[in-house]
Amino acid sequence: MLISKLLGERYKEKPGEAILPSHIYLLRGGYIRQVSNGIYSMLLPAKKVARKIEQIIREEMDAIDGQEVLFPVVLPAELWQESGRFDSVTNGLIRFKDRVGHDMLLGMTHEEAAVHLARSEVKSYTKYPFMIYQIQTKFRDETRARGGLIRVREFTMKDAYSFHTSQEDLEQYYERALQAYHRIFERAGVPQVISVRSDNGMMGGKVSHEYMLLSDVGEDTIVLCERCDYKANMEIAVSHIAHKRLEEQPLEEIHTPNITDIDSLADFFKVSPNRLMKAAVFAVENSNKPVVVFLRGDLQVNEAKLRNSIQANVFPLTDYENVNLCFGFIGAYGLDAEGMDVVYDISLQGESNLIGGANKLDYHLQGISMDRDIKPDKYVDIAKVNEGDTCSKCGSKLKLNRGIEVGNIFQLDTKYTASMNMTFTDIDGKQKHPVMGCYGIGVGRLLASIIEASHDEYGPIWPISVAPWQIHICLLNSENENIRQIGFEMYEKLGKIYDVLMDDRNVAAGMQFADADLLGVPVRIIVSKRNIEKGELELVTRDKAIKKNIKLEDLEKELREIIR
Amino acid sequence: MLISKLLGERYKEKPGEAILPSHIYLLRGGYIRQVSNGIYSMLLPAKKVARKIEQIIREEMDAIDGQEVLFPVVLPAELWQESGRFDSVTNGLIRFKDRVGHDMLLGMTHEEAAVHLARSEVKSYTKYPFMIYQIQTKFRDETRARGGLIRVREFTMKDAYSFHTSQEDLEQYYERALQAYHRIFERAGVPQVISVRSDNGMMGGKVSHEYMLLSDVGEDTIVLCERCDYKANMEIAVSHIAHKRLEEQPLEEIHTPNITDIDSLADFFKVSPNRLMKAAVFAVENSNKPVVVFLRGDLQVNEAKLRNSIQANVFPLTDYENVNLCFGFIGAYGLDAEGMDVVYDISLQGESNLIGGANKLDYHLQGISMDRDIKPDKYVDIAKVNEGDTCSKCGSKLKLNRGIEVGNIFQLDTKYTASMNMTFTDIDGKQKHPVMGCYGIGVGRLLASIIEASHDEYGPIWPISVAPWQIHICLLNSENENIRQIGFEMYEKLGKIYDVLMDDRNVAAGMQFADADLLGVPVRIIVSKRNIEKGELELVTRDKAIKKNIKLEDLEKELREIIR
Repeated sequence: MLISKLLGERYKEKPGEAILPSHIYLLRGGYIRQVSNGIYSMLLPAKKVARKIEQIIREEMDAIDGQEVLFPVVLPAELWQESGRFDSVTNGLIRFKDRVGHDMLLGMTHEEAAVHLARSEVKSYTKYPFMIYQIQTKFRDETRARGGLIRVREFTMKDAYSFHTSQEDLEQYYERALQAYHRIFERAGVPQVISVRSDNGMMGGKVSHEYMLLSDVGEDTIVLCERCDYKANMEIAVSHIAHKRLEEQPLEEIHTPNITDIDSLADFFKVSPNRLMKAAVFAVENSNKPVVVFLRGDLQVNEAKLRNSIQANVFPLTDYENVNLCFGFIGAYGLDAEGMDVVYDISLQGESNLIGGANKLDYHLQGISMDRDIKPDKYVDIAKVNEGDTCSKCGSKLKLNRGIEVGNIFQLDTKYTASMNMTFTDIDGKQKHPVMGCYGIGVGRLLASIIEASHDEYGPIWPISVAPWQIHICLLNSENENIRQIGFEMYEKLGKIYDVLMDDRNVAAGMQFADADLLGVPVRIIVSKRNIEKGELELVTRDKAIKKNIKLEDLEKELREIIR
Repeated sequence: MLISKLLGERYKEKPGEAILPSHIYLLRGGYIRQVSNGIYSMLLPAKKVARKIEQIIREEMDAIDGQEVLFPVVLPAELWQESGRFDSVTNGLIRFKDRVGHDMLLGMTHEEAAVHLARSEVKSYTKYPFMIYQIQTKFRDETRARGGLIRVREFTMKDAYSFHTSQEDLEQYYERALQAYHRIFERAGVPQVISVRSDNGMMGGKVSHEYMLLSDVGEDTIVLCERCDYKANMEIAVSHIAHKRLEEQPLEEIHTPNITDIDSLADFFKVSPNRLMKAAVFAVENSNKPVVVFLRGDLQVNEAKLRNSIQANVFPLTDYENVNLCFGFIGAYGLDAEGMDVVYDISLQGESNLIGGANKLDYHLQGISMDRDIKPDKYVDIAKVNEGDTCSKCGSKLKLNRGIEVGNIFQLDTKYTASMNMTFTDIDGKQKHPVMGCYGIGVGRLLASIIEASHDEYGPIWPISVAPWQIHICLLNSENENIRQIGFEMYEKLGKIYDVLMDDRNVAAGMQFADADLLGVPVRIIVSKRNIEKGELELVTRDKAIKKNIKLEDLEKELREIIR
């Protein structure tokens, strides 16, 4: 490719709407252009990177016995009605009617389509396990589209679905998939991506992992132990909570006028917040029963944990009028919980001598003892982990990190195969529902994440495995016929072996170099009049590790050493 | 790939819903499964063929300086409002609102997206010409989905868009694209595909070509000269019409009670239908003025030509009540054409002594002379070509053939660049709208068309360039440990060089061969106990051209000769 013909203007100015480095460079380098909120067109450099990423993914999926298929983007509503997701997924699903009034939707994920395809084809255990995958466009009507390709509404995704005769077989395969994902990220130039346990969310099922690129600009929070291998997404992370079992005190009502927040209360009682029992109230989706959560005053509610615990989406309460609670002074003791659910966090288990609301305006109670005064049926883990908390696995300190989710894998149990009545005849002759796993990677987000992981102040530094081109020839003094001829001969010759871009424009060297930095091609060959007169070329790598003059005749040997 | 693990049941029975050979074999061979009307999932064998077709297309697009990009499937309505197509395309366009109420659509073609991408990137003539293309999913809400992958609602399409500083430059490039398309079809194993002039339809612009695979099951009618190279789609085909200039006769009103159709009228007057002037009335989209077409009695109206002539969609009239015409007796002479448009076909030009309606119940006129009695402002070509008509180029006879459209290319003029205000600075310093071309191929339809062109009574015969696998090993007697070992060693070894499928199932030879025929792999190696004992293998090609026993040690040499 000649830069003089390459579509996509490159520019110096930081685009106003962009904050993330990947977003900035994808715009400045002429990789992508926005078409609508969270919807982009890709130009050739981005498309080439995407195709190389796709090919790595394809090879690794084939290596774990994947069969590439293609599901439709547009699906009939029936499939999602069978699984129940047509009604249960309220967020981001595009629905429309076709010309004959049939309900259709744009597939956000393809568990239903995978079951639909597989259930008529595989009747016997002998064909199990099997995995099918596709690389296809998906549309999710995200509220939070942002950051260029980091969070979009339309994207290319590799989604894979495996089917098994047992949970044990799924677990074996899941481990293979987990390793295949690590190989994908390694080959794509981001070996530092880690896998962490995560929340299954709308996918259902129990065990899942997310692949995280640690990055300050990430949207996710990951909890890592500073010593052992404990890693989890904040949404499901747990820590060890030390309990102070203090001597029980009698209950006493204390006048606390207008003192409703934790800090003021701790000040008033001259105690640490972990001596307080706080209440938080949430509305529950599709329910008129709010849920009241009690937890220790030094902790916050983790909404994902709460959602998983009560198996429903929760939202901060906004309609206080119709809830019969004494807000600011809600307490577990003497609470009239009619018409609501109550959840107790494990941080309260066995605690005594706590201070909590008295369910009475301007009053709190002190001396609350859980086992004596409250006696909950059970305690549930509902609290967020904090920086510095104790690792429940090894006792060291936990750290919080930001991360970008670049992939995820799920164990789905029989959620889809049971609801959609997919069965097989097992070795014992019985009809059973297969156990399923699913495995996703967003191609565009991975592309952007590679830039987040690998750039400098001038542009992306593409790993050679996914770089849009392998070699970038800067033809300086291209107005000189001799230089031009040498350049084009080199371009032709190298083009037979490598993926080569050449800057053939008659522009200043500075402009060529700035553009080369934005295009981020790993190996740069600079052809200039001055060097050519000495029979030399300049060879530079984008990461600045190599910068040297070489003899013209040594070029191919040098390249063979750099590009393997 | 091992057939024991390949997803996709194969079966013998003709599927009830399928008529076309490609549809039958795609279902019977486990290539595709229907998800909804005109919406399919592809299994591995089809996906592999599709990927090989895509790669051929990609290489040929790159060879004519194409730059691969990716446009969104979901587009904001604004883009189509700019071009005017949001309102003008009423057929098959899916529109919906996103979560914030924004009008969106599913792109049926991507001229608007291409202009949107290019218009901000290319400001100077020096970057022209350029071509961008994508291979991406499209959805068209077809009424006529049928025939498996021949006519679907969702499909993968390669669509390319070229931009030029002049019509001349477009024409030069158009010729390159035309040839590139022929190379694509040749490489994909259907060199017999022909290009014919065609109607531009909803795309706008003037010149266009369709690529047609002649096939009795095709939906299109193509007009071919039996001697010269005249080729055109029926929609725009022309023929030479001989005129009989008869002696003028006086006009005379004749009582023709209840005689309203052409055959009865010809009988009544004892003349050939070409002595009659017939009338046809059409409703016009978005207009309350119907159009009355007069043409010679032996001809039929070509609605595509009529649509192009009046630049609006036409439909057979259904509401006779509000049209002030004497149906059955409509004539050009004495017609009160208030509130309607009238079109005269060139078949009437210079004719005299014609018989036509008298605009009066049960009466016709004879002796009508066009130049004396009607004097139209102009004549337009509106008639359908008939089998045996005279070629207007060489005077030989025209034949009608059925064909499947497997690609199309269009010259679009400035239809999109002007309406969407895309400009460039030309060499003369002036701002101009570029001229555009567009070039489409449906991947799935081409896949199905290859089967239409290449199959026998047992299944598809895949050309080696697009075959799902190159070699199919039939491992007969696979229960024999020795055979099994030889087979798997061969599978491993050949798998390093070729794309190999092996039937490792312990099933009867007949079942293996029937499945092999359905999978259509070009080269088959049959490993059987009997042959192995003689140190031999059987080598068979799917097209039956080769069927012989070879020595085990000659296998690789033999394969090198067949698979180049």
